Amino acid sequence: MTVRFGLLGAGRIGKVHAKAVISNPQAKLVAVADAFEQAAKDLSSAYGCEIRTIEEIEKAGDIEAVIICTPTDTHADLIERFARAGKAIFCEKPIDLNVKRVEECLAVVDETKATLMVGFNRRFDPHFAAVRKAIDDGAIGAVEMVTITSRDPGAPPAEYITRSGGIFRDMTIHDFDMARFLLGEDPVAVTAHASVLVDKKIGELGDYDSVSVILSTASGKQCVISNSRRATYGYDQRIEVHGSKGMVAAENQRPVSIEVANGSGYTRPPLHDFFMTRYTEAYANEIAAFIDAIATGAKAAPSGKDGLIALALADAALRSVKEGKTITV
Amino acid sequence: MTVRFGLLGAGRIGKVHAKAVISNPQAKLVAVADAFEQAAKDLSSAYGCEIRTIEEIEKAGDIEAVIICTPTDTHADLIERFARAGKAIFCEKPIDLNVKRVEECLAVVDETKATLMVGFNRRFDPHFAAVRKAIDDGAIGAVEMVTITSRDPGAPPAEYITRSGGIFRDMTIHDFDMARFLLGEDPVAVTAHASVLVDKKIGELGDYDSVSVILSTASGKQCVISNSRRATYGYDQRIEVHGSKGMVAAENQRPVSIEVANGSGYTRPPLHDFFMTRYTEAYANEIAAFIDAIATGAKAAPSGKDGLIALALADAALRSVKEGKTITV
Amino acid sequence: MTVRFGLLGAGRIGKVHAKAVISNPQAKLVAVADAFEQAAKDLSSAYGCEIRTIEEIEKAGDIEAVIICTPTDTHADLIERFARAGKAIFCEKPIDLNVKRVEECLAVVDETKATLMVGFNRRFDPHFAAVRKAIDDGAIGAVEMVTITSRDPGAPPAEYITRSGGIFRDMTIHDFDMARFLLGEDPVAVTAHASVLVDKKIGELGDYDSVSVILSTASGKQCVISNSRRATYGYDQRIEVHGSKGMVAAENQRPVSIEVANGSGYTRPPLHDFFMTRYTEAYANEIAAFIDAIATGAKAAPSGKDGLIALALADAALRSVKEGKTITV
Amino acid sequence: MTVRFGLLGAGRIGKVHAKAVISNPQAKLVAVADAFEQAAKDLSSAYGCEIRTIEEIEKAGDIEAVIICTPTDTHADLIERFARAGKAIFCEKPIDLNVKRVEECLAVVDETKATLMVGFNRRFDPHFAAVRKAIDDGAIGAVEMVTITSRDPGAPPAEYITRSGGIFRDMTIHDFDMARFLLGEDPVAVTAHASVLVDKKIGELGDYDSVSVILSTASGKQCVISNSRRATYGYDQRIEVHGSKGMVAAENQRPVSIEVANGSGYTRPPLHDFFMTRYTEAYANEIAAFIDAIATGAKAAPSGKDGLIALALADAALRSVKEGKTITV
Repeated sequence: MTVRFGLLGAGRIGKVHAKAVISNPQAKLVAVADAFEQAAKDLSSAYGCEIRTIEEIEKAGDIEAVIICTPTDTHADLIERFARAGKAIFCEKPIDLNVKRVEECLAVVDETKATLMVGFNRRFDPHFAAVRKAIDDGAIGAVEMVTITSRDPGAPPAEYITRSGGIFRDMTIHDFDMARFLLGEDPVAVTAHASVLVDKKIGELGDYDSVSVILSTASGKQCVISNSRRATYGYDQRIEVHGSKGMVAAENQRPVSIEVANGSGYTRPPLHDFFMTRYTEAYANEIAAFIDAIATGAKAAPSGKDGLIALALADAALRSVKEGKTITV
Repeated sequence: MTVRFGLLGAGRIGKVHAKAVISNPQAKLVAVADAFEQAAKDLSSAYGCEIRTIEEIEKAGDIEAVIICTPTDTHADLIERFARAGKAIFCEKPIDLNVKRVEECLAVVDETKATLMVGFNRRFDPHFAAVRKAIDDGAIGAVEMVTITSRDPGAPPAEYITRSGGIFRDMTIHDFDMARFLLGEDPVAVTAHASVLVDKKIGELGDYDSVSVILSTASGKQCVISNSRRATYGYDQRIEVHGSKGMVAAENQRPVSIEVANGSGYTRPPLHDFFMTRYTEAYANEIAAFIDAIATGAKAAPSGKDGLIALALADAALRSVKEGKTITV
Repeated sequence: MTVRFGLLGAGRIGKVHAKAVISNPQAKLVAVADAFEQAAKDLSSAYGCEIRTIEEIEKAGDIEAVIICTPTDTHADLIERFARAGKAIFCEKPIDLNVKRVEECLAVVDETKATLMVGFNRRFDPHFAAVRKAIDDGAIGAVEMVTITSRDPGAPPAEYITRSGGIFRDMTIHDFDMARFLLGEDPVAVTAHASVLVDKKIGELGDYDSVSVILSTASGKQCVISNSRRATYGYDQRIEVHGSKGMVAAENQRPVSIEVANGSGYTRPPLHDFFMTRYTEAYANEIAAFIDAIATGAKAAPSGKDGLIALALADAALRSVKEGKTITV
Repeated sequence: MTVRFGLLGAGRIGKVHAKAVISNPQAKLVAVADAFEQAAKDLSSAYGCEIRTIEEIEKAGDIEAVIICTPTDTHADLIERFARAGKAIFCEKPIDLNVKRVEECLAVVDETKATLMVGFNRRFDPHFAAVRKAIDDGAIGAVEMVTITSRDPGAPPAEYITRSGGIFRDMTIHDFDMARFLLGEDPVAVTAHASVLVDKKIGELGDYDSVSVILSTASGKQCVISNSRRATYGYDQRIEVHGSKGMVAAENQRPVSIEVANGSGYTRPPLHDFFMTRYTEAYANEIAAFIDAIATGAKAAPSGKDGLIALALADAALRSVKEGKTITV
């Protein structure tokens, strides 16, 4: 079976997904839609597909699945439209920045029985997936304490911050999903500390750039998350899971793994400096998993509900900071 | 100048300090006192010193300094006695498990202008000291986020737990001191999550075995501490400091650093399995620093106040768990 | 400019190069030829190109370049044919197992001024290339001693050994090329020790499976090569260059970089177990460099002469083993 | 039982051994002898022992064992004298730079049945010893290929070079002993390449500063040794053993194991810069083993014969360089 795709949004991440689709022997990229004509044209000629409007893709008989890479505030509407049109949907995170709106949207997805997968790409990173596999294989016994370190190379521009929903909904949300992926149990309590250490402008916009979070589950498992909007040494992405029988960790990735030694010591190059090069394999694996879910009829994961829960945890973390207490979820 | 020592307590840690004294060219071990005659005899013959009573050491004209390694509940009394006797005092942590009692005791120390150093040995570990030096040298710019992972090889017996004051006052207290050592600023807010994951008996005794803590300072610096009473892979002791210009970390130490590779992968031996072998150099350096402070008249650090603040943080962490909120200190 | 390709040989390595061509925006795969019809068909349908005969590709006006992935004993003939046909040629190593035959072939290449690049893929590994770049950037001063460790996951079948030309011409030849790439000067003396430790059958076929080689240059630079036909821990590929001001090394690569710790120690997974997964990026980069050379008119490297010199070093190493002395080249 | 020691030579290495003796509960340092009165006095007061002449130590009824740390050219004479005096002898390597002289000396040792241990300290390094133990435990199956990298932080002064016997007898000799320790079988063939890359003066004195050596055993096991007189990154001491079932390696040691990360990458401090700090534990373990051999009547190892064989390999390596061929030993 070949899954035929429509791509909504021809921007940076749209190109990444287009490449994943055309390289996949089980998939075909039929059409792209983008409000910017030039973006659509560029992608169309680079990856050999038609240009269509969103409406045309909605009605197309030759397209079974769509990938939504449009701006965040269009996600929920498009999911509802394409769910009603009977297409399988892959949507970049988040579904929406508002929990209520996400709930409404997922109600439509449920009603239409549409396949929906949300783009928490990190679950598909081969190293993080291997950590999860080690847990599933019993290598560390029962999971007890998860540690997630996640730091960006540099802070985004003010304009981005404004539309991002804040650090918890924009950045930590990935770690909330990873925490759930690794804990194997939903957090019931959230505490967060947050401050502005990287860039005062971020504070002036009402956001934070440095946050620490503790999550606990009903059985007492704990997860600690450490975020910063700036790491001079690159895109710092580490996870560690401590269990009753051992520990498993995934180290950082770097583009080249040489080491130079001299009188100043032993130096390895910095980490990847961009999420797209860091998670190249994760993006390809994610789309492959989506295609596989459609082809086999398996349940697509992470689901819309996974997106909703991660968002609720982000909201709880923000409330914890504002109210100075642990929030029960 | 040679500093002449009396040793109070000939147990496990007493022997460690005795060895540090006799190996130090600036020091001499004059006498040991211990309620158990055999312990005193053994130490006396192994390290070549007299056996005296506490009273004799108190009045001795040939002893300038004492090392207190007796049970915790005798520390505050002995500090007061020896402060009044005009001796320089090194006391194993904690001064007492009760903040009030510590405050009273330190009032006596202040009044008598006695030299008092508290045994937070980890500050003297060469690796952790090198982390602090890197910070002081400006290698990472302004400190922003500190991460401390501290896990014991195995849980102590119930009897120990009962007298320990609980995990925060017994175990995390080392990390509170390390946090202050690295943050360079006192925490003003503490949040902790705690649970019993390792051993139910610990819970039955009203204590926890797995805790996560966030500390924040007035300027917004953050520190995350992760503790477990059991790590199958050894004595897990790591610190990491993230700053405006970079990051510095101290990795775990292991007794041998070989690696064996085969079809199952690349395997390095476990970590040290005991705090005494892990911190051998730290114990020697700590006593050397005490001797140096006496010999040069420099201020001994960590001070009694350092001990007090760490204890107050431990109390705040416990309150945070009980009340489910961030505690301001 | 788009470089249009004909592919000769649709086997394992042919597919790797086909993928590299179709993914490259500057290139187009026009046709494939293979004596086995089914192999040609499979590749043709997977990568969207025509099936033609070698003769047709030779005469084709719509093809500027060929990639030769046919059996070794056809390489020299094909290079000569396509050099005369005016095509740019990428040929898998070796050109031939016989130095004389290689010299004849290269004479034709010179005469026809054909572009010829030989497939020493390791030069294009990003990690090894970064080592070379560090040298070129002066990071280690003058190169003095190169160490190359190169061990296969497992010995090839007897049938392969028979046709391989022996371990020096088949396996060490890659390391001879790497030695030259890193030394920046041609070896003038070769000594080798060789034995059969892995598989007696290899010895019965007159070959070795474990070899150590020292190369020296006129200025006294040295290179040590260590080869084994079997490494239980995977495809072991390391280089290290010691210079007057420092050292640079490239560590092994592994498919996932997690670590599991427990009472047995800290274990990372084995290395890649196959040269194709280990050198995925190298193969893609190699073809990109070939395309770039054609597109820009730059000199293609490694050249035919590079292939010849590596083969001569292999021959010298074998003589050194047989005669028990250092061979001057 | 307490072993009572006389120390011959109060120089740098004499102090190291004095410390090892006084720290050992089974040993007592009775006397020191040194031609330089001040050196003897300093050591005597630092470690609490008498000053005696060599003759007095020879005849002393209260001394069972001597440690010889005098200049190399006195070693063989002193061994003979103290063997005849019935003392157990620990002698720093080498016994002599001349094979004949060593053979004569060992004949006396044999005749007198004296206990003689030669100071190849590296066998007692905990990391290298752990490599050997892993081999003995079967962790890597049959040993096949040993790789030894041994580089000094800096070249010694000309004066030292002149008296050293040349790089093979002075520096590589440690690696020859380590090769034998790890191969578990004596080398029968030696090839070496040598050059002057570090310091021309070394060449003017007729010596080399950069050497590569291959050793082979009768069963075909191989060992490669790489030496340089200068490594900007510290005292580079690595071993790796490849076997039929796996590989075991000992990495370099460094005084502090922190890592600093910033935009330039991840940097660990340089290695130890001095053999005495690098091999602190090895020196203590070595004397402990000697004491143990005396106390238990076990055979002391490394023996005089071990010293002789290593020297013979050094001579063979030098001949190999001069004659350009593999030397059979």
